Amino acid sequence: MKQVTHSIDPKYQQIAGKVEELISVGTFRAGDRLPSVRALSRDWRVSVTTAVGAYSLLEDRGVVEARNRSGYFVRPKVITPDRLPRKNPAKGAPVDISSAGITELIMDSTSSPDVVPFGAAVPCDDILPTSKLMSIYHSVVRSEGASMFQYSMPPGLKELRIEIAKRLLEAGIGVSPEEVIVSSGAMDAVLLAVKSTCEAGDVVAVESPTYFGILNLVKELGLKAIEVPVLAEGGVCVEALAEAFENHPVKACILQPNFHNPMGSVIPNDQKRRIVQLAEKYQVTIIEDDLYGDLYFGPKRPPALKAFDTDDLVIHCGSYSKALAPGLRVGWILPGSRYHRVKNLKYATSLANASVSEMVVAAFLKTGGVDRHLRRTRQVLARQNLQIREAILREFPEGTRVSSPEGGFVLWCEMPDGFDSEKFSIDALKRKISIVPGTLFSASRGLRNSFRISCGSPLDDRSQRAIGILARLAASQL
Amino acid sequence: MKQVTHSIDPKYQQIAGKVEELISVGTFRAGDRLPSVRALSRDWRVSVTTAVGAYSLLEDRGVVEARNRSGYFVRPKVITPDRLPRKNPAKGAPVDISSAGITELIMDSTSSPDVVPFGAAVPCDDILPTSKLMSIYHSVVRSEGASMFQYSMPPGLKELRIEIAKRLLEAGIGVSPEEVIVSSGAMDAVLLAVKSTCEAGDVVAVESPTYFGILNLVKELGLKAIEVPVLAEGGVCVEALAEAFENHPVKACILQPNFHNPMGSVIPNDQKRRIVQLAEKYQVTIIEDDLYGDLYFGPKRPPALKAFDTDDLVIHCGSYSKALAPGLRVGWILPGSRYHRVKNLKYATSLANASVSEMVVAAFLKTGGVDRHLRRTRQVLARQNLQIREAILREFPEGTRVSSPEGGFVLWCEMPDGFDSEKFSIDALKRKISIVPGTLFSASRGLRNSFRISCGSPLDDRSQRAIGILARLAASQL
Repeated sequence: MKQVTHSIDPKYQQIAGKVEELISVGTFRAGDRLPSVRALSRDWRVSVTTAVGAYSLLEDRGVVEARNRSGYFVRPKVITPDRLPRKNPAKGAPVDISSAGITELIMDSTSSPDVVPFGAAVPCDDILPTSKLMSIYHSVVRSEGASMFQYSMPPGLKELRIEIAKRLLEAGIGVSPEEVIVSSGAMDAVLLAVKSTCEAGDVVAVESPTYFGILNLVKELGLKAIEVPVLAEGGVCVEALAEAFENHPVKACILQPNFHNPMGSVIPNDQKRRIVQLAEKYQVTIIEDDLYGDLYFGPKRPPALKAFDTDDLVIHCGSYSKALAPGLRVGWILPGSRYHRVKNLKYATSLANASVSEMVVAAFLKTGGVDRHLRRTRQVLARQNLQIREAILREFPEGTRVSSPEGGFVLWCEMPDGFDSEKFSIDALKRKISIVPGTLFSASRGLRNSFRISCGSPLDDRSQRAIGILARLAASQL
Repeated sequence: MKQVTHSIDPKYQQIAGKVEELISVGTFRAGDRLPSVRALSRDWRVSVTTAVGAYSLLEDRGVVEARNRSGYFVRPKVITPDRLPRKNPAKGAPVDISSAGITELIMDSTSSPDVVPFGAAVPCDDILPTSKLMSIYHSVVRSEGASMFQYSMPPGLKELRIEIAKRLLEAGIGVSPEEVIVSSGAMDAVLLAVKSTCEAGDVVAVESPTYFGILNLVKELGLKAIEVPVLAEGGVCVEALAEAFENHPVKACILQPNFHNPMGSVIPNDQKRRIVQLAEKYQVTIIEDDLYGDLYFGPKRPPALKAFDTDDLVIHCGSYSKALAPGLRVGWILPGSRYHRVKNLKYATSLANASVSEMVVAAFLKTGGVDRHLRRTRQVLARQNLQIREAILREFPEGTRVSSPEGGFVLWCEMPDGFDSEKFSIDALKRKISIVPGTLFSASRGLRNSFRISCGSPLDDRSQRAIGILARLAASQL
């Protein structure tokens, strides 16, 4: 915030006050575009100079921000660390994963249209490039022959692998299409990565919190998990990771370095470099799940962890489920020296991917419409994230902490100790609101005082009301 | 064969001899339709009576068969048991599965267009309902909104589960759509079935020979396998199965009761009943892979093993990969009481299926074109099977035994002891012919003197030549 030294025109004050009021009542919300200077001047019958003056004042106060050529936008509240979730105390020893019985209940609710969708981390229909995908489907089905209904055997369609390899350049990864194996989404890729490096009984390091799908997978493969805390700023706690590697026979480590689910944070580049060094020192394979890498809110994509790996230490996994569309089921894995092992594993598990899906994604990536689509998606997601975050901070009881994601579309909320998020989520579901309780994100079923909120859908009247209901439910527990 | 008592008109003899010669040189092959009586009379300038007489003679001799309203067809040679593959001696004890290093080499070769496709068990392009599928794709993509690009979460699209449940009636299975979980093909279904019943270290009974994908899966899950022989007539040897259940702690048993891959045989109904009784007695879960059930050559579909199960002992798995198109990746599982376990496993592994694929298969099943398509497919496959079988028996050295499948599209060939099918398959691949060696179908890497031939493509000039080359390669080993 600039220091204000000159005296302020009272007219500017007055108009700025009116704008601030509209923001405080929620007419304009974090990330929203404000009326243009011209519109403000016309509608409120003030001079253009006054309108500009009012906006400058609000900019000085940190309430709005000017964006090049686009006008003024409501700025998200400045993040104070005491509103961010705290570090989860690292567990001392590897544990067998305990699973919450309510997983299925929560998952089932996520696809019901009459439930407010704060549960599943999926983009809402409006974000999907539906008409573009439709036209690509038509043209693929018209132009490909019977081959589109035959098996697309591992490693998957060559044209698709070429496009995946091209796009990975932006993540700092240079690979040939021959090093890519196409998977049925990121979960399939992570499954192949873990199976190719670990055997039942091995210890893997997992983040805490982490996506419950990863925990279920680790459990199903009979592995033991050692939890390493993830910070609201900076991603996984590298000190804790080093400690885990030092004190336990860790075989592999599953990380989401960019826009961590559920924390939203990113591991800074110097720390990414250090993690790769640790992997080398302790001979641990890092499995990188970069599912959200393309969904950055800042100016550019953070590099993948794999970008810092020169020694076959990182198996990179990704997917177009979040960036393009979940229903396509197209992801990838860069198995490095484990290429043949992973390919044979794919033969022995899901065998092949849906061929038309592979062709459609290849065509979409090739036509170049993907970047335009992603630019729009990032803007929408950033706005939804900000607005839902602000609404929670405004409505929820004192002591609520909310993550401040740098990308992706989920928020991690932490309530005071003693809060029971499993009870909270069941109460919420009774009121047709879906959220995911923190225990599902913890190998030891800890994190009971936290929960995840998906920002895949906009903050409309219904979800605004839902946050009010959630806030009252939360307050009733304190 | 009827006994011939009356004296034979020498004209009939002469014409019959000419037809037989055309069959012996391969102009007309097993399953082919012969010229009509009218055409024969016109082209060979004989009376209609003579033409009818000649065909009757050939019918009496078992060379041709009359089909109602369709004319005369070349009848496959009568199967003599000494030309059928023998029973694989059952192994005494559970083994860890050994895998052949050449799996990847063989699998890679199967999708190459310049290789004669006796390797992979896939239908050739001509068999696929390409234009029908194309039009369904267009209409699905036109009519469904953004929902087709969202996750289709387990248990999968309801409309599809309804159609699957309807079609299962033909297999003798009555289930509600709520009991069906959609999978990504049969392998995904079998994976879910095995994972939901076994833990690493458990013993499962597998057929010998059996599809190598099942063996790879069992290996990857850290299970021990006990081999039970499959007979060329009658499917799995039930005595050996009972013995395995009696003497070993068998947890589950994976069977292909209908048109076994690679043997092509079917378990008779009374034996199916007995297997279910054994499962109950020894508390073994049977995992039924009914992938080929719709591809019968006879008058009707054999019932599934599941049809005889009233007590939740059989987990039934299937897929439209062979009956409709491999690239769709749509299968199913009936998990019975393990429903929630299987659903959660699906969340933890491949998560969801390609949504558009599910919609397309649902629409195809609903429009009713499937039965017409399947009728044609069965005819084509039956003919290809017969012709390739006859060509092998004609060209291969003395002592070659070939299965006589009742459905599906693979043949199992057994050579005299000492034959090395791995060497044979590598030699064949050098000559651009793909076959799968027997060792891949054996948990203990036995069955070295056998190999599998796929009949998914027609016996054309190229594949006719290929059989000649294979026959010489085989002879050179004896």
